[in-house]
Amino acid sequence: MLSLPELVRLSLAEDVGPGDVTTLATVDPSLTGRARVYAKQDLIVCGNAAAAEVFRQVGATWTSALPDGALAAPGQDIGHVDGPLASILTGERCALNFLMRLSGIATHVHTCVEGIAGIDVLDTRKTTPLHRALEKHAVRCGGARSHRFGLFDGVLIKDNHIVAAGGITAAVARARAHAHALLKIEVEVESLDELHEALAAGADTILLDNMDDATLREAVAITAGRARLEASGNMTAERIRRLVGMGIDQVSMGGLIHQARWADLSLRIL
Amino acid sequence: MLSLPELVRLSLAEDVGPGDVTTLATVDPSLTGRARVYAKQDLIVCGNAAAAEVFRQVGATWTSALPDGALAAPGQDIGHVDGPLASILTGERCALNFLMRLSGIATHVHTCVEGIAGIDVLDTRKTTPLHRALEKHAVRCGGARSHRFGLFDGVLIKDNHIVAAGGITAAVARARAHAHALLKIEVEVESLDELHEALAAGADTILLDNMDDATLREAVAITAGRARLEASGNMTAERIRRLVGMGIDQVSMGGLIHQARWADLSLRIL
Amino acid sequence: MLSLPELVRLSLAEDVGPGDVTTLATVDPSLTGRARVYAKQDLIVCGNAAAAEVFRQVGATWTSALPDGALAAPGQDIGHVDGPLASILTGERCALNFLMRLSGIATHVHTCVEGIAGIDVLDTRKTTPLHRALEKHAVRCGGARSHRFGLFDGVLIKDNHIVAAGGITAAVARARAHAHALLKIEVEVESLDELHEALAAGADTILLDNMDDATLREAVAITAGRARLEASGNMTAERIRRLVGMGIDQVSMGGLIHQARWADLSLRIL
Amino acid sequence: MLSLPELVRLSLAEDVGPGDVTTLATVDPSLTGRARVYAKQDLIVCGNAAAAEVFRQVGATWTSALPDGALAAPGQDIGHVDGPLASILTGERCALNFLMRLSGIATHVHTCVEGIAGIDVLDTRKTTPLHRALEKHAVRCGGARSHRFGLFDGVLIKDNHIVAAGGITAAVARARAHAHALLKIEVEVESLDELHEALAAGADTILLDNMDDATLREAVAITAGRARLEASGNMTAERIRRLVGMGIDQVSMGGLIHQARWADLSLRIL
Amino acid sequence: MLSLPELVRLSLAEDVGPGDVTTLATVDPSLTGRARVYAKQDLIVCGNAAAAEVFRQVGATWTSALPDGALAAPGQDIGHVDGPLASILTGERCALNFLMRLSGIATHVHTCVEGIAGIDVLDTRKTTPLHRALEKHAVRCGGARSHRFGLFDGVLIKDNHIVAAGGITAAVARARAHAHALLKIEVEVESLDELHEALAAGADTILLDNMDDATLREAVAITAGRARLEASGNMTAERIRRLVGMGIDQVSMGGLIHQARWADLSLRIL
Amino acid sequence: MLSLPELVRLSLAEDVGPGDVTTLATVDPSLTGRARVYAKQDLIVCGNAAAAEVFRQVGATWTSALPDGALAAPGQDIGHVDGPLASILTGERCALNFLMRLSGIATHVHTCVEGIAGIDVLDTRKTTPLHRALEKHAVRCGGARSHRFGLFDGVLIKDNHIVAAGGITAAVARARAHAHALLKIEVEVESLDELHEALAAGADTILLDNMDDATLREAVAITAGRARLEASGNMTAERIRRLVGMGIDQVSMGGLIHQARWADLSLRIL
Repeated sequence: MLSLPELVRLSLAEDVGPGDVTTLATVDPSLTGRARVYAKQDLIVCGNAAAAEVFRQVGATWTSALPDGALAAPGQDIGHVDGPLASILTGERCALNFLMRLSGIATHVHTCVEGIAGIDVLDTRKTTPLHRALEKHAVRCGGARSHRFGLFDGVLIKDNHIVAAGGITAAVARARAHAHALLKIEVEVESLDELHEALAAGADTILLDNMDDATLREAVAITAGRARLEASGNMTAERIRRLVGMGIDQVSMGGLIHQARWADLSLRIL
Repeated sequence: MLSLPELVRLSLAEDVGPGDVTTLATVDPSLTGRARVYAKQDLIVCGNAAAAEVFRQVGATWTSALPDGALAAPGQDIGHVDGPLASILTGERCALNFLMRLSGIATHVHTCVEGIAGIDVLDTRKTTPLHRALEKHAVRCGGARSHRFGLFDGVLIKDNHIVAAGGITAAVARARAHAHALLKIEVEVESLDELHEALAAGADTILLDNMDDATLREAVAITAGRARLEASGNMTAERIRRLVGMGIDQVSMGGLIHQARWADLSLRIL
Repeated sequence: MLSLPELVRLSLAEDVGPGDVTTLATVDPSLTGRARVYAKQDLIVCGNAAAAEVFRQVGATWTSALPDGALAAPGQDIGHVDGPLASILTGERCALNFLMRLSGIATHVHTCVEGIAGIDVLDTRKTTPLHRALEKHAVRCGGARSHRFGLFDGVLIKDNHIVAAGGITAAVARARAHAHALLKIEVEVESLDELHEALAAGADTILLDNMDDATLREAVAITAGRARLEASGNMTAERIRRLVGMGIDQVSMGGLIHQARWADLSLRIL
Repeated sequence: MLSLPELVRLSLAEDVGPGDVTTLATVDPSLTGRARVYAKQDLIVCGNAAAAEVFRQVGATWTSALPDGALAAPGQDIGHVDGPLASILTGERCALNFLMRLSGIATHVHTCVEGIAGIDVLDTRKTTPLHRALEKHAVRCGGARSHRFGLFDGVLIKDNHIVAAGGITAAVARARAHAHALLKIEVEVESLDELHEALAAGADTILLDNMDDATLREAVAITAGRARLEASGNMTAERIRRLVGMGIDQVSMGGLIHQARWADLSLRIL
Repeated sequence: MLSLPELVRLSLAEDVGPGDVTTLATVDPSLTGRARVYAKQDLIVCGNAAAAEVFRQVGATWTSALPDGALAAPGQDIGHVDGPLASILTGERCALNFLMRLSGIATHVHTCVEGIAGIDVLDTRKTTPLHRALEKHAVRCGGARSHRFGLFDGVLIKDNHIVAAGGITAAVARARAHAHALLKIEVEVESLDELHEALAAGADTILLDNMDDATLREAVAITAGRARLEASGNMTAERIRRLVGMGIDQVSMGGLIHQARWADLSLRIL
Repeated sequence: MLSLPELVRLSLAEDVGPGDVTTLATVDPSLTGRARVYAKQDLIVCGNAAAAEVFRQVGATWTSALPDGALAAPGQDIGHVDGPLASILTGERCALNFLMRLSGIATHVHTCVEGIAGIDVLDTRKTTPLHRALEKHAVRCGGARSHRFGLFDGVLIKDNHIVAAGGITAAVARARAHAHALLKIEVEVESLDELHEALAAGADTILLDNMDDATLREAVAITAGRARLEASGNMTAERIRRLVGMGIDQVSMGGLIHQARWADLSLRIL
């Protein structure tokens, strides 16, 4: 996995290429100064680490004014940058691209999970390639939680695996034999029959895919605490609120990340 | 800049890490098959090259059913994957993450520029780090055009550069002396006074920042064809339609990319 | 993580550097031929994939005669290499270094676990840097199983974590809140008091560190099936055999890997 | 060749992946402290540079208590680590994996060459891929010496090269013509006839492969100082002692490295 | 593009490989000292940044005595190096290789353009792979200017593009439609007929390839200020002087870089 | 060390960056064709491997018409390229940059060593960073030979090492003790007194630095075959011819590489 410094180094290379011709031409390299980065809307702050790394790599210094996860009002400062003006201008766009994306996700997540208690709301692997760690961090800043990181740190047996393995029972047995003992085994089921089979096979967690409220309620009754239950498919904040107290342990929502838009932030030289 | 194969290699590494434990456990590596990837909403297709590269790297083969830029209706196939089932399952999420993001952008751009003629709608450098080439390609698939790629292939003198250089005249002169002769020089102006100065300094293109329609119209009259004119700031599809015919050559909109959401696609083993 | 092709590329670069001067000087590049790689002792074969990749990268072809995990007797062929003699000679040492190390580990593991049933014998994270995936594969070829791969795909709370967190109860609670829901939580305990606390805290697996047989037996009784039990510390094949049937689910042994020596293999041009 | 910082960076990435979930969950990042790394057996210390680099990369500081090559008794400190507890815990296993491997090799070499004088004992290219520089350093710490590093910094003509070149005379002539003038030419011979031919061809060094003591003695007499002599094949410490004074200049032993096991070291937070 | 630190890291790796055996053997690592780097001929200094980076990476410090672009006389110091003697000796050749090449180019350019005013002399893309940014910087130090950096930051339509596109008119139209609006479009023409077509097509700049003085003069008359004019082909300093005042805006000369030889510099420990 | 594919990949990235805008705009990607690369002067061909790799990476195919080391007359074809016209045009400059540089070196070396026999003419480490392997290959194509590749495959004790070690005797002894036994030891001497000391210390090769013919002759007499002799400093083809037969074994000349200019080659679409 790309470390944050590597991700930022590549991102700056993408934008700057062989050189920031405008800044090299117009800004005396000996000029120094300070800039503020501030919110232009209500938002949940996210991206301090990336912003700090961007400005460090161009030779300036980021000082956070609000930590990741904090609420910012329009006009409020998120952080400040000190250093050569040329460095600040060259790093500006790259740093803002991280901050605006991640704050946008955190803010969107916040609106999705605000006021929900008693049920875990989880992200999925529907994330922007090479940004997964940052986006999952933004999800936590917004108040939701992480599902597994990738294909390597959790077993999730989906319909296609079940078909290939020859049924839920066989799939769970094979997974139990192959995966190391600290990984739980989750099975996706599309019916209550499959739920019965998954429970009998000893699944640790069961993903109830695209079931209506009544079916979910029945699934809770059938399971009777023998496995952790996750609901997924067309989840919205409103529906999640309805599920609280029903006995569902967690819901997963790809839209926490992929339906978010960027938050509005700006940088101004002081 | 990361080449597409490198971007995909790193993206797969992010998701697969030391191994897709579920697939390794449950899917016999000698099983082969075919899957379809299909639209679950109306969308503009984008991402064939990335999908092809993802599946190539895991050992399967992507065959496009619709080229980038085509319109797909719900249920319509975008492409097919042939190869080992295990490869298809391991690459599925990564490939869909590229396709869903890029088709989401192309589709959003399409709604923004549909029916607009006589004015160029351009993207900006507000792009996801390491995805700029793909996202700008999606913008073109959706019907809009590219502004400069990065800080290296175009000169855009903004307010901070002007302050640092000591005025528009000095900034343009410095840029003309420094940049190579195939780069045009664009200057951002915030008032008609600045417009006069930029024209006198010989700017090739002038970015009229956050001006209302009346001021834009006045700017066109002042310029009288001496420079290309770009309008920017709070652009919407409706406003762009109003600007057509006014004499503005191009508008730029970061939101073409950063206000897009993912399109809905799915992969199913046949 | 390094992919196998990258690992092999770097390994060849380490050995070949700016060029194999002996082969370049003495071997006509148009000569082709075949070589056999054979066992010079009883051993469990391991390393086919690495050998194949080494020879592929130098322009020759590896054909396996015995799959990973097979038993080879002295004089028995493991595989054959076809291609330019110069390629075979340049790749020989690098390929054998992989094969001899990994077969050495698989063979050592085999002697450790032979005839043991009813208890899982696991490796640890005491592995050669950059060779973990290969060494854990060798462990499986030898008949033992894998513990977690790294610090990211399993929670194992050790004494130092417990001290830092302020006790077992707090540590388990924090881990439960932080880790995603498909990761089990293992706690290392050094006494039966700690075992009681770990059980009360809800640990999924408990590592009983350096306990004698009587204490282990008592631990099994106390646990009464509420958690999976792992014994560790000074494990030997003989002791593991004694533990079978006692109620311990698994033992872990770093020595599966770090006490192995290389197996003896040789390459001969035919 | 991988530099030490690159080797360590990749090694940490292998172990830590997307994050040390246990430490992130249980250890407050603001806690700092000190740990000792100490010997649990008699050993020759090796690996300070790697340990220092591992801890530097995670944000802690290694202070050596015993230099590479020193003898450590059980319980004796090898070094200390200062810094955030979380950093120490995250880097612990990776640092110990380097230290235990390398100290194991140095200690094994020491037992092989202890008390031997008058003959050089050399390692070979049978080394762990990507660890050659470190392992050859460990050999020197243990009291033996290095043979050539790789295929590029010495000419060693083996039986297969001789066959391909059409005889020893041709092979040496070709090597002399091709290799640059600062590389000596060593030829492996399996009989006294071949020795005569190699001497006549002007080899600088001759490797006497798998000869018994009587044959080696005869080879020394035949050579009469015209070339440097190396004995190899089934070497043990006892046999090397017998060869001292016979006129053999050097012996080479792959087992210096590949028959070593890890030394026992431990890290404890103070 | 390789950053300067990456370029230098790879360059040192090329020269040092697994170790500077001479220095490691003969120079006590605790010895420190100072060296001077001085000119052995009249030259234009170039390469301070690369020299500084080389010495930084080996653990020494470069202090410039003359900035890039300055004239140095034989015997005059260019800079000084302070640090461990071993570091200075290990970095010496690599640093000098950068300084001597780049100063050689700057010096050669200086002789080509000395005394020329009123016409821009430009480099081309005939540069040493991976050294383009440095070589173009040397060109500027010597008093000439840069043409586009690469294939991405300027449009230059050559004869083969014209053939493939079906004529100059079509080629310019396609380029205008495809390239972003800040890139000017240059067309290479080989006759006055082609010049007429290029002007009609709206080319921003026209490259007059291999025309004699009379034809160039005619081209200037035809163009009448409608496009920027570049002359190229068999340019020499003498010919460029003849072109001054004729109305040609710029000439391009690959030989600024590829006909340069290294300048003579030396390092001496003080 | 960069492999040739890596060197070429980075070189193409340097030139192409985010895209060859001219070719993308003007050349239909489905057009295929053939181009010839031909000499525009008498030259020694060098660079086939690099040209082949460049065109391979862009999707075209290089077929050599003349092997490295062959003499080409003006107008004679060096090789042909087949494939998509767009690929040929995008790779053209990069491939020619390799071919023209390397053929320039080979041609220059050829003029330096033509007709010289009985003395080896060697290159030095004065090479373009990251191009050493290619440039040393060009030297061999031109008819001269290689000195050591880098700091790792030969011991060359220069004046600064001698000072640091406390004299020639100490330096040679330390080098003998440290370097592996297949590396010869060369000592640079500046006087006949130093020559006596180097011979007494047992140097294998002695570099006679900047001595006139009479002194060289005296050095040969003093050495009397006890070491190999190398002359260096201000060597020219004429002087080398004078040295033949005097008893000097080899001369080294940095200028073989650093005084070469590019040869003139051109690519034309057929």
